[in-house]
Amino acid sequence: MIRKNIVLGHGSGGKLTDELIRSVFVKRFDNEILTVQGDSAILPLRASLLSFTTDSFVVNPLFFPGGNIGTIAIAGTVNDLAVSGAKPLYLSAAFILEEGFPLDDLEQIVISMAKEARLAGVKIVTGDTKVVERGHADGVFINTSGIGLLVEGRKAISTGSGIAVGDKILINGPIANHGMAIMAERNNLNISADIKSDCTSLNALINSVFNVCDESDVKFMRDATRGGLSSVLCELFDKKTFGVEVREDRVPIDDNVMGMCELLGFDPFHVANEGKLVMVVDGKKAENILNAMQKHPLGKQAAIIGDITASHPGKGHIITGVGGKRVIDRLAGEQLPRIC
Amino acid sequence: MIRKNIVLGHGSGGKLTDELIRSVFVKRFDNEILTVQGDSAILPLRASLLSFTTDSFVVNPLFFPGGNIGTIAIAGTVNDLAVSGAKPLYLSAAFILEEGFPLDDLEQIVISMAKEARLAGVKIVTGDTKVVERGHADGVFINTSGIGLLVEGRKAISTGSGIAVGDKILINGPIANHGMAIMAERNNLNISADIKSDCTSLNALINSVFNVCDESDVKFMRDATRGGLSSVLCELFDKKTFGVEVREDRVPIDDNVMGMCELLGFDPFHVANEGKLVMVVDGKKAENILNAMQKHPLGKQAAIIGDITASHPGKGHIITGVGGKRVIDRLAGEQLPRIC
Repeated sequence: MIRKNIVLGHGSGGKLTDELIRSVFVKRFDNEILTVQGDSAILPLRASLLSFTTDSFVVNPLFFPGGNIGTIAIAGTVNDLAVSGAKPLYLSAAFILEEGFPLDDLEQIVISMAKEARLAGVKIVTGDTKVVERGHADGVFINTSGIGLLVEGRKAISTGSGIAVGDKILINGPIANHGMAIMAERNNLNISADIKSDCTSLNALINSVFNVCDESDVKFMRDATRGGLSSVLCELFDKKTFGVEVREDRVPIDDNVMGMCELLGFDPFHVANEGKLVMVVDGKKAENILNAMQKHPLGKQAAIIGDITASHPGKGHIITGVGGKRVIDRLAGEQLPRIC
Repeated sequence: MIRKNIVLGHGSGGKLTDELIRSVFVKRFDNEILTVQGDSAILPLRASLLSFTTDSFVVNPLFFPGGNIGTIAIAGTVNDLAVSGAKPLYLSAAFILEEGFPLDDLEQIVISMAKEARLAGVKIVTGDTKVVERGHADGVFINTSGIGLLVEGRKAISTGSGIAVGDKILINGPIANHGMAIMAERNNLNISADIKSDCTSLNALINSVFNVCDESDVKFMRDATRGGLSSVLCELFDKKTFGVEVREDRVPIDDNVMGMCELLGFDPFHVANEGKLVMVVDGKKAENILNAMQKHPLGKQAAIIGDITASHPGKGHIITGVGGKRVIDRLAGEQLPRIC
């Protein structure tokens, strides 16, 4: 019998689970390591330093302009590994499915995951499937965890311990697209048919930067996701002996995204992205690195947006176009639930 | 303000998320690697072979005799690593929380996770928190992924490629306790107040076996979870050139568990466990290994339950007490949804 929807038996660990694993997951994620029956993947990995990360994805809606929950589930974890300085290698994928979820939708999501994994050069090597009764989940939730290989020379990047006054802050392109694309899709806002999520894997862009500079020139990297650019900037200066100054007019924002933010009362600095890299680099190498970014398809609109300053240590300011000053702060409540 | 329940803002990636991470997760999982702000954990791990696994936990009810979702979330992933032959080292923990979930319950679950991780000798090094609106999840779902260190000499264990006719099948204790404990708790069945889940980490028991034998004497290990003992046995003989024969009267089952299975019409071979190790070992070493198991607190009722046979290749039989024969088969539908 060909089933069109997920039933509880797909999570039983018996025949139906087996069928689902073989006909959907193994078929699409196919690689020589992927475990079919074994519960663990065996990874041939000669390493002395690893990066390890996990993220659950509950984005609503599941499909949106520019991607779907599967695209984010891969890109998000690849990016967490890549911004720690590591080379992303292996991912796990665990699905919590709601009874009744259409198998066609699951297949489309899995195809997107396989595609994004191929683009990012990572392998999905192990997984899990659970099913909960109708009304006890929301379609599908996906967890991906990832392992990356880290070299000693990049170890300081993940903590930003090398950041110093005079360093420059870069971003690879316009902010707030993901959040506004989700917002528009969720509310059927016609105003914004052309806003797409920026959801993508950033590891190739990061490689292109390291091709033109020394490892020690890159002091810190973070992908600005939930909480937006502000959250990353706060992380930069919190409890530090230096401050952060960002020039508002240097931060790239697409006109239609800015328009939608203004209309709905969102601060674009707080809106989520899924393909934005914030990088702190040695001031003397900043132009060089900017040029390398701009040559990469994911960095065409890259910009130097701010400085690490000796003034106002532990604080961050946005210098507005008219010369005013705004304090950079974390989002206090919840702006857009289930953005990723 | 002291909050008593999860709100959507706890998943925002902003201030509330930060507070939750610090006051609940970091406080309990405390170790030198655990990432607070960074999105990846950096692991100093000199390896050439790793074991990597993932599992999401959706057990209902969250609390049951013998444990809670937190205990299973740690033990389950530790066991998946351990039965692959690896030494479990590092775990991730990702939470999907339903709006309104009591913070006290979350804290109790997290305390259980910390305790089980300590017992198993693993560190929880990275995590994630998402919150979905009331009615779109069921309290809390937890994903744990894990990394273990594998040595070359144990590589064949995860696939069972060394299994040969004459090998013996062992189990460390009575089956079906977890499934029946959940069943009783879910349905408020008073008949079974004394049935407890067997939920526990098996890595110490496995170590005690390797202390008395060569690595090559252990051909295969698996923890019998969803799908029960039958599922593991099927995995053993599926598409193989040998068969499996299990003596029903050798398989340990507690009387009260057997009684409940009979009353409710469950085949205990299909009922889930969370602390049962199935091991295939060299026939000549079986008694020796059995003795080692029986000396360990988790193996007091260990037994040799069956054989790898030349007869009926690719098939498995249960020899019943009265000398009859039953075919071993996988669970076809769903017996007990959300058992783990």
